[in-house]
Amino acid sequence: MSLLIKNGTVVTAIDEYEGDILVEGEKIAAIGKDLKVEADKVIDAKGMYVMPGGVDQHVHFSFEFNGTKVRGFETSNAAAVGGTTTVIEFVNQVKGKGLIDSIDDYRKENADGIAMVDYSFHGVITDPRPSVFDEIERLPEAGYPTVKLFMAYKGMFFHADDDVIANAMKKAKDVGVTIMVHAENADLIDLLQKECIEKGNVEPYYHAVSRPPMVEVEATERAINIAKLMDAPLYVVHVTTKGAVDAIIRAQNEGLPIYGETCTHYLLLDKSNLAKENFEGAKYVCSPALREKEDRDYLWNSIKNGWLNAVSSDHCGFDWKHQKHMGENDFRNIPNGAPGLENRFGLLWTYGVEEGKITKQQFVDLVSTTPAKNNGLGDCKGHIGVGYDADIVLYDPNQGSTISNETSLQGVDYNSFEGMEQKGKVDKVLLRGQLIVDDGKYIGEKGQGKFIKGKPFGLCYEGQNK
Amino acid sequence: MSLLIKNGTVVTAIDEYEGDILVEGEKIAAIGKDLKVEADKVIDAKGMYVMPGGVDQHVHFSFEFNGTKVRGFETSNAAAVGGTTTVIEFVNQVKGKGLIDSIDDYRKENADGIAMVDYSFHGVITDPRPSVFDEIERLPEAGYPTVKLFMAYKGMFFHADDDVIANAMKKAKDVGVTIMVHAENADLIDLLQKECIEKGNVEPYYHAVSRPPMVEVEATERAINIAKLMDAPLYVVHVTTKGAVDAIIRAQNEGLPIYGETCTHYLLLDKSNLAKENFEGAKYVCSPALREKEDRDYLWNSIKNGWLNAVSSDHCGFDWKHQKHMGENDFRNIPNGAPGLENRFGLLWTYGVEEGKITKQQFVDLVSTTPAKNNGLGDCKGHIGVGYDADIVLYDPNQGSTISNETSLQGVDYNSFEGMEQKGKVDKVLLRGQLIVDDGKYIGEKGQGKFIKGKPFGLCYEGQNK
Amino acid sequence: MSLLIKNGTVVTAIDEYEGDILVEGEKIAAIGKDLKVEADKVIDAKGMYVMPGGVDQHVHFSFEFNGTKVRGFETSNAAAVGGTTTVIEFVNQVKGKGLIDSIDDYRKENADGIAMVDYSFHGVITDPRPSVFDEIERLPEAGYPTVKLFMAYKGMFFHADDDVIANAMKKAKDVGVTIMVHAENADLIDLLQKECIEKGNVEPYYHAVSRPPMVEVEATERAINIAKLMDAPLYVVHVTTKGAVDAIIRAQNEGLPIYGETCTHYLLLDKSNLAKENFEGAKYVCSPALREKEDRDYLWNSIKNGWLNAVSSDHCGFDWKHQKHMGENDFRNIPNGAPGLENRFGLLWTYGVEEGKITKQQFVDLVSTTPAKNNGLGDCKGHIGVGYDADIVLYDPNQGSTISNETSLQGVDYNSFEGMEQKGKVDKVLLRGQLIVDDGKYIGEKGQGKFIKGKPFGLCYEGQNK
Amino acid sequence: MSLLIKNGTVVTAIDEYEGDILVEGEKIAAIGKDLKVEADKVIDAKGMYVMPGGVDQHVHFSFEFNGTKVRGFETSNAAAVGGTTTVIEFVNQVKGKGLIDSIDDYRKENADGIAMVDYSFHGVITDPRPSVFDEIERLPEAGYPTVKLFMAYKGMFFHADDDVIANAMKKAKDVGVTIMVHAENADLIDLLQKECIEKGNVEPYYHAVSRPPMVEVEATERAINIAKLMDAPLYVVHVTTKGAVDAIIRAQNEGLPIYGETCTHYLLLDKSNLAKENFEGAKYVCSPALREKEDRDYLWNSIKNGWLNAVSSDHCGFDWKHQKHMGENDFRNIPNGAPGLENRFGLLWTYGVEEGKITKQQFVDLVSTTPAKNNGLGDCKGHIGVGYDADIVLYDPNQGSTISNETSLQGVDYNSFEGMEQKGKVDKVLLRGQLIVDDGKYIGEKGQGKFIKGKPFGLCYEGQNK
Repeated sequence: MSLLIKNGTVVTAIDEYEGDILVEGEKIAAIGKDLKVEADKVIDAKGMYVMPGGVDQHVHFSFEFNGTKVRGFETSNAAAVGGTTTVIEFVNQVKGKGLIDSIDDYRKENADGIAMVDYSFHGVITDPRPSVFDEIERLPEAGYPTVKLFMAYKGMFFHADDDVIANAMKKAKDVGVTIMVHAENADLIDLLQKECIEKGNVEPYYHAVSRPPMVEVEATERAINIAKLMDAPLYVVHVTTKGAVDAIIRAQNEGLPIYGETCTHYLLLDKSNLAKENFEGAKYVCSPALREKEDRDYLWNSIKNGWLNAVSSDHCGFDWKHQKHMGENDFRNIPNGAPGLENRFGLLWTYGVEEGKITKQQFVDLVSTTPAKNNGLGDCKGHIGVGYDADIVLYDPNQGSTISNETSLQGVDYNSFEGMEQKGKVDKVLLRGQLIVDDGKYIGEKGQGKFIKGKPFGLCYEGQNK
Repeated sequence: MSLLIKNGTVVTAIDEYEGDILVEGEKIAAIGKDLKVEADKVIDAKGMYVMPGGVDQHVHFSFEFNGTKVRGFETSNAAAVGGTTTVIEFVNQVKGKGLIDSIDDYRKENADGIAMVDYSFHGVITDPRPSVFDEIERLPEAGYPTVKLFMAYKGMFFHADDDVIANAMKKAKDVGVTIMVHAENADLIDLLQKECIEKGNVEPYYHAVSRPPMVEVEATERAINIAKLMDAPLYVVHVTTKGAVDAIIRAQNEGLPIYGETCTHYLLLDKSNLAKENFEGAKYVCSPALREKEDRDYLWNSIKNGWLNAVSSDHCGFDWKHQKHMGENDFRNIPNGAPGLENRFGLLWTYGVEEGKITKQQFVDLVSTTPAKNNGLGDCKGHIGVGYDADIVLYDPNQGSTISNETSLQGVDYNSFEGMEQKGKVDKVLLRGQLIVDDGKYIGEKGQGKFIKGKPFGLCYEGQNK
Repeated sequence: MSLLIKNGTVVTAIDEYEGDILVEGEKIAAIGKDLKVEADKVIDAKGMYVMPGGVDQHVHFSFEFNGTKVRGFETSNAAAVGGTTTVIEFVNQVKGKGLIDSIDDYRKENADGIAMVDYSFHGVITDPRPSVFDEIERLPEAGYPTVKLFMAYKGMFFHADDDVIANAMKKAKDVGVTIMVHAENADLIDLLQKECIEKGNVEPYYHAVSRPPMVEVEATERAINIAKLMDAPLYVVHVTTKGAVDAIIRAQNEGLPIYGETCTHYLLLDKSNLAKENFEGAKYVCSPALREKEDRDYLWNSIKNGWLNAVSSDHCGFDWKHQKHMGENDFRNIPNGAPGLENRFGLLWTYGVEEGKITKQQFVDLVSTTPAKNNGLGDCKGHIGVGYDADIVLYDPNQGSTISNETSLQGVDYNSFEGMEQKGKVDKVLLRGQLIVDDGKYIGEKGQGKFIKGKPFGLCYEGQNK
Repeated sequence: MSLLIKNGTVVTAIDEYEGDILVEGEKIAAIGKDLKVEADKVIDAKGMYVMPGGVDQHVHFSFEFNGTKVRGFETSNAAAVGGTTTVIEFVNQVKGKGLIDSIDDYRKENADGIAMVDYSFHGVITDPRPSVFDEIERLPEAGYPTVKLFMAYKGMFFHADDDVIANAMKKAKDVGVTIMVHAENADLIDLLQKECIEKGNVEPYYHAVSRPPMVEVEATERAINIAKLMDAPLYVVHVTTKGAVDAIIRAQNEGLPIYGETCTHYLLLDKSNLAKENFEGAKYVCSPALREKEDRDYLWNSIKNGWLNAVSSDHCGFDWKHQKHMGENDFRNIPNGAPGLENRFGLLWTYGVEEGKITKQQFVDLVSTTPAKNNGLGDCKGHIGVGYDADIVLYDPNQGSTISNETSLQGVDYNSFEGMEQKGKVDKVLLRGQLIVDDGKYIGEKGQGKFIKGKPFGLCYEGQNK
């Protein structure tokens, strides 16, 4: 089965050209100018940008907070229509169960046969027994070469102390497993939260007040120091503020393999949303909290200048009506997280490329190429190159839409970006050669997504080879 | 006329794959796995790395020092056998003549019809009259979008004062012309040189003593400050020392479009060579001077971490016997510069890639892709991509050689890297689709090289879009 | 009762002159050239340096580790013969008892009527109940305006989490109470200690291995970040390594009231002592651990350049034979701390002033004037000025001795500085006008020392007035 | 002849106490509480602050610009009534004459027998022949241990190139002569000035436009780099902007003996003054130019935190009507400089101490003690200590005035601080024991001031002893 995409403008992280792409089976077989080949099927991409499918390295399909859970893989077609063909989910270790078993079991039950885009996983250690650390060296074989630890969330079962992070790094570094951290100081947040509550400040806005930038800066610097102590690489997820970026820059200036991402909402939204009336602010409760305008500007600079290397959604599908309202009388009980999987690609294009903040090459790099590399998928995902998986987006820059939850597939009762304009349209999407989105509509089927094993040493794919 | 390169391992700055490349006429027409096409000619690249031809952005074919001149374009086949298919030369403005006329005239007389690889030019302002600054806005149209200014060389006709640099930046920034500087403090060198001579220290070694790292650090920081004042991009050529790299890092940390390169000899040689007996040290007299071991290590880190974005040769073909000996009694009269065009590609592969200091992707980026972009050639040179010029090197990693001036085409009576081992061999080279090197031998002909116009805004190709 | 000290060379932190000092009662009444006054007693200080008595701001007379205690105030005459007339001790809160009561009770029982030099106290919170934080605002009135928190020592009763530090700062800053920290990351030490023990590395040397510089750097940066979050001053005790000093410098560069001290042993001893055979290394077990030669050099620079503002002894009198041997089979059980009260003044003079590393003015500043100010004693202690307490040392620069535990009053069975040469001799010491040391011998009596209340806002005495 | 100042509140850079001061002849003989001595004369200082007379280290009594000269020593009583008892003037070398002879001759003719306060000199090299550099080693003996070089003022006879600065440092450092610089990039100013004039921007305001902060930052960094190259101390005069302060901080963070001052007008005035109508802006034309509000704030922080160590007047008495008007049609011809000698002490007290920005101790340090030390007068001037010159100010904090040129002794037709309030009054001033100001009126006589030889190694007085 072969497919020829003709006459599009191919955009990769490194170049851009008018050309044709020949897909054979699941792979890209050839790229060229006026390819003279026969194909079973031909798609005319005239006037379209042809780009690698997005890789969203920070997605939650099983996160649980206060006993309530986010929407799962049954909503992963939202990724597809949003131009994302691979998601990487964070899976918590089940207390008392091994880390690998926890992910394997979760995967079999909740992803395999359900997912509508390709998927991979990060493990989250929640039960740091010696045997769990011993598992780390078997993670690459299992295809889970990344482990996240939560520095935040004092008293919750998934919180990790500094020795857990250091111990994980010790086991991880030689086998190419990347340690990731959610960097916020749990103790300080706890103190500030109590202070808010004591004063009767229970509204969603105080979520941000109790998590000021400094609690993120502190934890980021601490994680970097631990990485330096252990001589290990580090990936900092959802970086939101200048001080944290600067800590990463300083580490990179020392030549250290220390990297970070930011997320769509930190680039586009700010703290003022948390102050919305009638508990609407709760829709924007995520951690770290939304910041100020200045932080947003600095984050745009950070992705433009390469200080942060990816833009994720941190997608977390909690309903507002029932789930978010659990914290109506105490912001601490509002489930943390917001949906965003469906709009990441289009929003970054619109407010990044179309507004001249980043080039098209940088867009592809941030949304696909580097997220794939970071997580050991750099040899098959995130790039339009010979031999790569034929995960391809045809983006029509001349169309557009207004974001509305009405048409969303995310399965949540609100959209954080409601009403924002999107320039361009995800017209067609191929997943390993198969058309799963056509004219912007999802036409694939449940279970079409495949588990992709991550390979180790993702952070060292390029630029790091010691 | 079509050509198929089959079965090689294609390496670009972003990926690597087994594949075929179809060349039609001068361009790359298609890339793929087992391309099913007919071609007039087929080259089997089995076992070879197939890489874009090198782009050497810092070459001298007309530099004159103390009234004596380097070898010219008649030796540019040395580039070809060394894997470099494009050279960018620095051409001094002739006093009393316009800048563009100076380059045009030089080009017609000395390059067109002679060059054996493709070529482009940087202008050097030596006669900073108002009319010359006015010419800057016409440089893009003329195809010379880069201008270098010499902060060093007090009293020489090509030295430029700070106001000349600032004035050039003022005119250049809006039209996308990049100002480059040779950053050494002319005054301080002059003082230190006189001090050496007064003490009777006339040997080549004192070239280094009179040009300590700080004179480069100072000038680099000054050039950056001028760029900040003028709000202009800046490119610093031949960066050699930690302090200068750090100044560039600090500027980049502020998000400024300030970049630099280093050169092969600063990565591989050091100051001790200047102390060689019997005036052998003179072979290594170039400016800035060779540094210490620590500087070399830091420069390797700098290219690995992206703090410097290119590796050039700063090729300068002066003979030892007659030309270098002009300074036998006073190191100040030794023509500054050393040959290196032929060995840049092979040495960076050997001591970079083979020793694990940089990846193959980084190699291609430093030696071809980014030098092309820096100078406005990024849409046709330095990359194996659809539509790019078919400048292609087939590199056989399993062969090797010992560098010897006996076999060199550089036309100079010595080689700075004499006796060093090179891993791998430039087996075949294509220049716009034509085979000009076969089995390591130059088989092209004089004049086969073509002038390539640089486009403006080279520094902003990627990562800078304001 | 009046006393005239004639003909000495008076040295203060700001000047130096030949002159006379008139003491009336406990105070300095006049300073001058050839004072024409009658006095009850005259001391001829010809050839002597006349300096303010030392203020040792970091002393332990009650520290308990593994159930065993240091020597107490009955050995405080060691301070006197060593040129120190004021000590400031750290007193742990007793679990279940209030902080002020803990210090008051300790003081009455263990210091009042016993001490042989003047004394003041720092509180240490060990039981962070809300009521204890509420006590902070009453500390100034009680005369205890400084509180230390231990970031180190995981699992011990005196360890403090980040929220305790932040909470203490919150209460402290408005009332002028200074929060001090022992900055080492407890978690990381715990991990590294276990790693050592698991490998059978139980000797004293592994104390240093399990407490590398980075655990101090991390905690120092964290404490500074907490201080920034809370907008509070901070004092970092026993700073030992470049990274920690640099963190303090960076904070000071932001204009923040963040200061630190180092100790005699970090300036003069290094890690190699911990490797001494036959368990001799245990004598040098203190926390932070002794460092490398490079750290010592940097610490000397730090006191010379004002990056650290005091030199303390961190005196901790544990016996080697019985107490240190508790850790014979596991370095974790070796009581942390070493004696040093008696030699601080003489050693800093010898290796600082006499070796040209610091001026005499800096010596007085580091050993007396600033430690007094830091702790709210700056209006009566640490200076030879009109109205100040007549705590005066007559130092004979022309004598000298070899340090030997035989003659020590510290009451411990070893001396960390055994065998080192001391230039100069503490010949006479006055405590509030009374001669307590003559010809180097202690001639005072038990209980002659007096409790001196510290005043709040010590850190803001000079240079900070917001 | 003896004098007793009774009952004042003595304030020094280190302490503060109620006390009496006994002056015998020219010197302070004793300080004490209720001194029981007989004296020829008694002054009751009840309610007054008794402080050391100000030392103004940056004064011009002979500066010439465009052929017109400032007011000279005949107006130095303005210093006296303003609380300043020592001035240090910059004397330009006369072309063709030696540096020492130039100062000696100037001094004899223009200062000796005329000056009404004590005085010392900085030399300015204008004619950098070898013999002038050779003179540097004889400067200490001549009593002129400081040399300033002008990096600014392209084309003027007193401009110095980088090699002159470096050469001066080379000769100076071993003999304890301090090199000072006026740090502005002459070339860049020249370019920017021409640009202004070409556009017809000739008004005083364009003085500031043509001297933006970056020209100062650049030159400051360059001077520091030269000092690092030559391993020499450096003093930067009239620092006005954050970037320049930061460069000094970075140098100090490396432990280098690099210091700077700021001036009263940079703390209190800003750029908006230059925009005043009817050529009033010309009154504020001085170099560097007045800056923005943010710079003022940062300068206040800089003196509070010790990043800059002195506050000078840069007094330069040009008339507005005739002299400033020379530049009516071209701001480049406006003589650079403004009066300020008379108001430095009172303004720094008012806007520093009284507004809580600095302590009284810091005030004395910045206005007297450190300026004296910087210039080798630290053993006799700038401090109330035994043996020091009895240069004493009695400052009445309960009086005040409005600054008006009507009552000024500066001899110029305007006052930069016209109309500003001053809190406190310089009530009495002693110069070496003699009353020269009483009840705010000058009562001394011409020639009462004495030349004071500066001693070498002023910068190393405290904190630097290598």
